[in-house]
Amino acid sequence: MSDSTCPSIDMDRFFSPRSIAVIGASSEPSKLGHKLMRNIIEGGFSGSVFPVNPRGGEILGRTAYADVLDLPDVPDLAIIALPAAMANEAIDRCGRAGIPFGIVVSAGFGEAGNAEGEEELVNTARRHGMRILGPNVFGFIYTPSSLNAQFGPSRVLPGRVAIITQSGALGASLMGKVFDEGIGVSGVVSTGNKADIDDVDLLSFFCSDPNTDAILMYIEGLKDGRRFQSVIDDLSRSKPIIVLKSGRTEEGARVVRSHTASLAGRDRIFDGAFRQSGVLRAGSIREALDWTRALINLPVPEREEVLLITNGGGLGAITVDGLMENGIPLYDDVEWIEREMGSIFPAYATMNNPVDITAQAPYGSYLKGLKKAIEEPSIGSVIGIYSPTAGADMDDFTKGIVRTVGGAGKPVLLCSFGGSDAIEQIKRLGAEGIQAFYYPEEAVSSLSALIRSSRSKKRTPTNSNRSSGPTEGLTIHLGENKPGFMDAASALDMIERAGIPTARRWVVHDEEGLKAAVDGSKGPFVLKALSADIVHKTEAGAVVLGIGSVSGLLEKYRDLSSISKSALLMEQLKGVELIIGAVRDPVFGPCVMFGLGGTMVEVIDDVSFRTAPLSMEDALMMISETRAGEIMEGFRGSGPIDKGSIAEAIIRLGELLLLNDRIEEIEVNPLMASPSGIAAADARVRFGI
Amino acid sequence: MSDSTCPSIDMDRFFSPRSIAVIGASSEPSKLGHKLMRNIIEGGFSGSVFPVNPRGGEILGRTAYADVLDLPDVPDLAIIALPAAMANEAIDRCGRAGIPFGIVVSAGFGEAGNAEGEEELVNTARRHGMRILGPNVFGFIYTPSSLNAQFGPSRVLPGRVAIITQSGALGASLMGKVFDEGIGVSGVVSTGNKADIDDVDLLSFFCSDPNTDAILMYIEGLKDGRRFQSVIDDLSRSKPIIVLKSGRTEEGARVVRSHTASLAGRDRIFDGAFRQSGVLRAGSIREALDWTRALINLPVPEREEVLLITNGGGLGAITVDGLMENGIPLYDDVEWIEREMGSIFPAYATMNNPVDITAQAPYGSYLKGLKKAIEEPSIGSVIGIYSPTAGADMDDFTKGIVRTVGGAGKPVLLCSFGGSDAIEQIKRLGAEGIQAFYYPEEAVSSLSALIRSSRSKKRTPTNSNRSSGPTEGLTIHLGENKPGFMDAASALDMIERAGIPTARRWVVHDEEGLKAAVDGSKGPFVLKALSADIVHKTEAGAVVLGIGSVSGLLEKYRDLSSISKSALLMEQLKGVELIIGAVRDPVFGPCVMFGLGGTMVEVIDDVSFRTAPLSMEDALMMISETRAGEIMEGFRGSGPIDKGSIAEAIIRLGELLLLNDRIEEIEVNPLMASPSGIAAADARVRFGI
Repeated sequence: MSDSTCPSIDMDRFFSPRSIAVIGASSEPSKLGHKLMRNIIEGGFSGSVFPVNPRGGEILGRTAYADVLDLPDVPDLAIIALPAAMANEAIDRCGRAGIPFGIVVSAGFGEAGNAEGEEELVNTARRHGMRILGPNVFGFIYTPSSLNAQFGPSRVLPGRVAIITQSGALGASLMGKVFDEGIGVSGVVSTGNKADIDDVDLLSFFCSDPNTDAILMYIEGLKDGRRFQSVIDDLSRSKPIIVLKSGRTEEGARVVRSHTASLAGRDRIFDGAFRQSGVLRAGSIREALDWTRALINLPVPEREEVLLITNGGGLGAITVDGLMENGIPLYDDVEWIEREMGSIFPAYATMNNPVDITAQAPYGSYLKGLKKAIEEPSIGSVIGIYSPTAGADMDDFTKGIVRTVGGAGKPVLLCSFGGSDAIEQIKRLGAEGIQAFYYPEEAVSSLSALIRSSRSKKRTPTNSNRSSGPTEGLTIHLGENKPGFMDAASALDMIERAGIPTARRWVVHDEEGLKAAVDGSKGPFVLKALSADIVHKTEAGAVVLGIGSVSGLLEKYRDLSSISKSALLMEQLKGVELIIGAVRDPVFGPCVMFGLGGTMVEVIDDVSFRTAPLSMEDALMMISETRAGEIMEGFRGSGPIDKGSIAEAIIRLGELLLLNDRIEEIEVNPLMASPSGIAAADARVRFGI
Repeated sequence: MSDSTCPSIDMDRFFSPRSIAVIGASSEPSKLGHKLMRNIIEGGFSGSVFPVNPRGGEILGRTAYADVLDLPDVPDLAIIALPAAMANEAIDRCGRAGIPFGIVVSAGFGEAGNAEGEEELVNTARRHGMRILGPNVFGFIYTPSSLNAQFGPSRVLPGRVAIITQSGALGASLMGKVFDEGIGVSGVVSTGNKADIDDVDLLSFFCSDPNTDAILMYIEGLKDGRRFQSVIDDLSRSKPIIVLKSGRTEEGARVVRSHTASLAGRDRIFDGAFRQSGVLRAGSIREALDWTRALINLPVPEREEVLLITNGGGLGAITVDGLMENGIPLYDDVEWIEREMGSIFPAYATMNNPVDITAQAPYGSYLKGLKKAIEEPSIGSVIGIYSPTAGADMDDFTKGIVRTVGGAGKPVLLCSFGGSDAIEQIKRLGAEGIQAFYYPEEAVSSLSALIRSSRSKKRTPTNSNRSSGPTEGLTIHLGENKPGFMDAASALDMIERAGIPTARRWVVHDEEGLKAAVDGSKGPFVLKALSADIVHKTEAGAVVLGIGSVSGLLEKYRDLSSISKSALLMEQLKGVELIIGAVRDPVFGPCVMFGLGGTMVEVIDDVSFRTAPLSMEDALMMISETRAGEIMEGFRGSGPIDKGSIAEAIIRLGELLLLNDRIEEIEVNPLMASPSGIAAADARVRFGI
């Protein structure tokens, strides 16, 4: 229901209200209206809190008012803790009282099939110029205002991470988790059904909030992916945004729909949009928390090369596997390693990367090794994996780490691997803001988040680097196209007008036409029956490959005539079969795709997505994410293929969808690519009504 | 150096020796020879321990002997804690003393480039009929004998897991980890360089050991993959074997080589061999420990369908994503869920799978839900994800879980998600043997291990179900083949003789021969220059596809003549392009592969491996692991492809390598597959010297 025409709102009064009304406040401890009141009061909120309850009396030491219209003051925020059926009336009265912000905690709206009730709420609020959070939320916390306006846990550790969660229960339990992990929060907001105030409003606030350094989001779905992306594209360059999104699988998406009425959308497109916007998508809750902690405690690396120092060769091997799988390069100046590390470690240590100092090396030399690596500017980050050996003075060792690693100007990620000594050390280091992990794989994962965050910050935002404005051909006169698929010849003509190279071709209607077309051309040719009705042409027997001679062509044309008199004759191209396409996604609107093409495209399943418009940088990144991207540098002895021209074609397909509302889908498959260039050899274009 | 001719040895005296000699025992606490003595004595070993040190005197209260030949008794085991240069002499003296087992803890052998020294050790031991563990190990622990014969940590929790680790440091720190996680061990053995006693000897012992329920292995490489597999194939059906293998990536393999001189081998082949043998390969150390704990504490499920009960919809969605990604089916009797769960939970709960009981449901009804699910025989296993809500009586709740879940006849995996209350509960449940996890993803991962373990147990071992003995054609007279590649025609002839269908074809040497061959055939044809020198034919321009007419063929034949007068004319086949192959791996010997074929095979990278011989069941499983396997049921409207005939062809390729030592490699690409059958359209065969 929120859309891009919504005015950008100033959320300051929402997060730092002077006074708050709790509609449905209660003296009964089991009621949400009681828990909310209590959390607000016990959380230390310094403004006024007005309980509203038709029965009046006193609630938690405060005079209750029968009606929000009776309040002595106009609060900045009203929290509505009433059954769903009474929420609309309450919003209306709050609006009439001039309250600018409301929170509807009540469930029983869109997520329970009551979409009308939800729409009514929003309409009522809009009528009064009021903005509302919810319904189906637990409320929010904002620690700089000492405001705990939610009915979940009361223990909150103030800090610099903002949590935005679509699931209230997950948010509440996550609060317990971060408390226990020592991750302090600036804010926690439950977004629930996002009927009005949504992720974008909250992200905008937290990204400009000086009290917040990183944002952790749990998302089940987005109502307007484009608006989300347009905001986040800039925001993610100033603060890391870590996202956990469920509904990755079809069954997961079903659960999401019944939970917060969200459209989980095509997960691949979410994935592409997140990458495009510099959002860090975590694979698990644990990973999201590890990443968050690393991102608020460590600087982003200036170089990507990592040096690994370990006293366990096996742990070193496991760590290197993880680094490679995350595409993190190893620092490879072996001369430096031999010279500098060789001066510290005994001869049995392996002077390479990892520096395997072996179990015989005491922690003192391990610390010296860490120090050298921290001081060397050509090393981007340092991973230290140490299994405490029996008899080590753990207190001295831990203090040594704090002295050596504390305040390093580059990421240093440690793993103390072992039993209670190691676990104790990790906890002590954590309290000092030093990132130490229980398992080496988790240090690797966190470093990968730091490196991706560093890439995000350097990224050119999509909007400022997109290909120059619409060119000739991109706004096409489409009036005459019926809904459904264009025939292949028209589709190829259309994408050619849009500036995408296509194979040389002729439309023929009779044998004479065929002969005339072939005359002077060398072949081989491809001949296809021309009909918009035949979509999967290969299966219908309408494609004939590699016909070299005129007599052979005529013979095949006669065969095809049973399907269609009109045929498309094309030069057969050599090269690698790619696919490029554009599709209109319900969440993100026009999106583009790239991958390995051919008839097995679904099986090969090597495609990446981005939303349109996209920059040249985005398009190149998208190509590099696929296996098809690997062959652009040359394949089986052939020369390199120009990625730029493919990227340009992808960008143009996106523009076509952006500028022409009626085009629902374009698929160019195969796009033949070779060192001599690219050309579309087939295309499908589908029009909407 | 160990090979399949090694006699299977009785390791009982090694693990339960009556007496032990420690060669290099020392009074100096920092020396390994001291730590070993101390651990053995303090560990409570009830047999005799003889320190051996040329200086004599007393060590840890025991009389030291100057020479192992002076001992009053012949120990069953000698532990050699001397510098590498002195180890061989010590082994020799132990052998002369009649000691049957030795452990060489010393480093400085194969892993440090001293392969000769290592070989010398083994030869010396063999001469005396002595078996040795090491070199480059920390020793071992066997808790049923109260024997702690290693120089690492002294704290050991007796239990039912055996740990076999190639990395000493990793093993030592893992001991700390399992102690802290409450996972008790029956044994811990460091295998180091595996010069003599290796994984197979140890696995054989632990698999028949009544004190061991599960085996956790860390492997960097194997010297003889076939011997490993032949033993493990049976063993894994009696006890779960969890493997952590490093060297997954090229860089990781480099680290492994410098660490324990191991050949990490082709990781994909390891992966295939592990699957084939029912070994559970974990992706991380944490996962390996989670799996181990689940496998020793929970029964394997009788059915795979899982019911999920949660009080957090978001957590439910995350869990379902994980289940789907692990191929675990959801219990789908919604009628049962509505009836049975509906009687417990209020109307706002979602009666589906997951059963989302919402944050409003008290733990008492959660427990009732768990109980119902545990009692329903058609539910294979139960996952319960609960975020403790504020104010819950955690003590009562935890006791309730113990009452409800303890002793369930099916796997019940719980996740208490939240802060200190949840963490405390997980620890208490763990102490009762109830599997509760910090994160839902970890419950899913452990369930996937249980399900795979259950499949392993049901698996027919490879050896008892392989295709009937070698048939005509599999033992081929190969004397005349030169080392290197066969030409394509001979290669196709060979695999045809081996019983694999091939495309119809003719070898032609002149235009007359070409005309005669084409006569009476309809085409289209493929014409290839015939030369063993041209391996990547497509690139050399030697393949011409889809030539329909005789005149076209003659024209192309003339073109090809510049490359080779001999040409292979083949009928062009329709269908999906697959690849099947066989290769001789340095670790596992003859192996087979299957995947999507065509010229892009390396890029598409959709292949799975198995070792040969393999059963029909193995071959079908191998097919189902690939994306290519997905299209066997039908693709874009065409009918199903017979997996059995492909599996049979794969098995035959494996047999070819097994029976013909000189064949190094066979690759059939493409193997054309369609509903009407399969046929090899091209083949490469490489011979060794």
